[in-house]
Amino acid sequence: MAVFIEPIGTLMNEFSKLPGVGSKTAQRYAYRVINMTEEEALAFAEAIVAAKKRVKYCSVCGNYTDKEVCEICQRRDPTTICVVKEPKDVIALEKVRDYTGVYHVLHGTISPMEGVGPNDIRIKELLARIRMGNVKEVIMATNPDVEGEATAMYIANILRPLGIKVTRLAQGVSIGAELEYADEVTLGKALSARTPL
Amino acid sequence: MAVFIEPIGTLMNEFSKLPGVGSKTAQRYAYRVINMTEEEALAFAEAIVAAKKRVKYCSVCGNYTDKEVCEICQRRDPTTICVVKEPKDVIALEKVRDYTGVYHVLHGTISPMEGVGPNDIRIKELLARIRMGNVKEVIMATNPDVEGEATAMYIANILRPLGIKVTRLAQGVSIGAELEYADEVTLGKALSARTPL
Repeated sequence: MAVFIEPIGTLMNEFSKLPGVGSKTAQRYAYRVINMTEEEALAFAEAIVAAKKRVKYCSVCGNYTDKEVCEICQRRDPTTICVVKEPKDVIALEKVRDYTGVYHVLHGTISPMEGVGPNDIRIKELLARIRMGNVKEVIMATNPDVEGEATAMYIANILRPLGIKVTRLAQGVSIGAELEYADEVTLGKALSARTPL
Repeated sequence: MAVFIEPIGTLMNEFSKLPGVGSKTAQRYAYRVINMTEEEALAFAEAIVAAKKRVKYCSVCGNYTDKEVCEICQRRDPTTICVVKEPKDVIALEKVRDYTGVYHVLHGTISPMEGVGPNDIRIKELLARIRMGNVKEVIMATNPDVEGEATAMYIANILRPLGIKVTRLAQGVSIGAELEYADEVTLGKALSARTPL
């Protein structure tokens, strides 16, 4: 006899597909659903279907949107493009509330180890946007890891001959972090890129 | 402009109703759903609706089931009833794989602080089962906290005059725990209930 009855087991199995959810957490989530009202459970299920059905990629920047062109591309300064790896990086940068330009989501970074080359991510689309003219600056905001750095360098090398200003997010110690725990590479970068006070 | 588009925001809001899920985790879950195939998202949504619709309470023991009478009540030794607070306690005990009797889920414990009296939990139903005859032992497996103890004592006082053997889960130090970190009440119980070697 299985410990869980079939509908609960099936739901737990679905929950355990979410990132970082093991069987114990899946069980807690499933029991929470069972304790919801029928309306609440329906609203939950509908939100899942709606998010999957209505969310697509912006035809300009590749970010998630429920329109043809996302609100950021529609309303913001198109002369500065911030290039990121994934849609969630847009969210992280938007939370800063300082940036007034638009984005370009690559949907990946160049990674020979994983067989991802320049043609597998949205670099052509970025170049097409730039060829339309009017772009003054491209900010490379890929992750500060090996693949992110390589991708930033690759794109910068293509853009520089076009006379576009290409910048990179500053690297250094995190605000609020303790030097004692900063890794040596970060500390080295912070030292060599030190700024006058 | 909202940081999240509406369908993603709505889904995040639904996920954050799950226990222990904050906005960051809800965002990770929502992005995982968007990266699912349409079939996967539909299966997820259907599992939620099915669990809510098909799971009901066993008419005998009060545990979750998708039948009129749960499999445990149908197949196992009805002369021993293990009384627990919630359906998830049944799961915890079933995982031991040692118990061959049936259960009775109270759906709560007596708690004057929260206005829960003996008539608010399934004590009548337990007495009705016992009056049907044939019950030899009732194991009180409510939580070892104030409410659980009070509820166990209350039910034991009712059952004892009926000539039913009433037992309580043993209390003591946890297997694998270190004495240094055991609380004094637990350690006291373990000392006074010491067993011969």
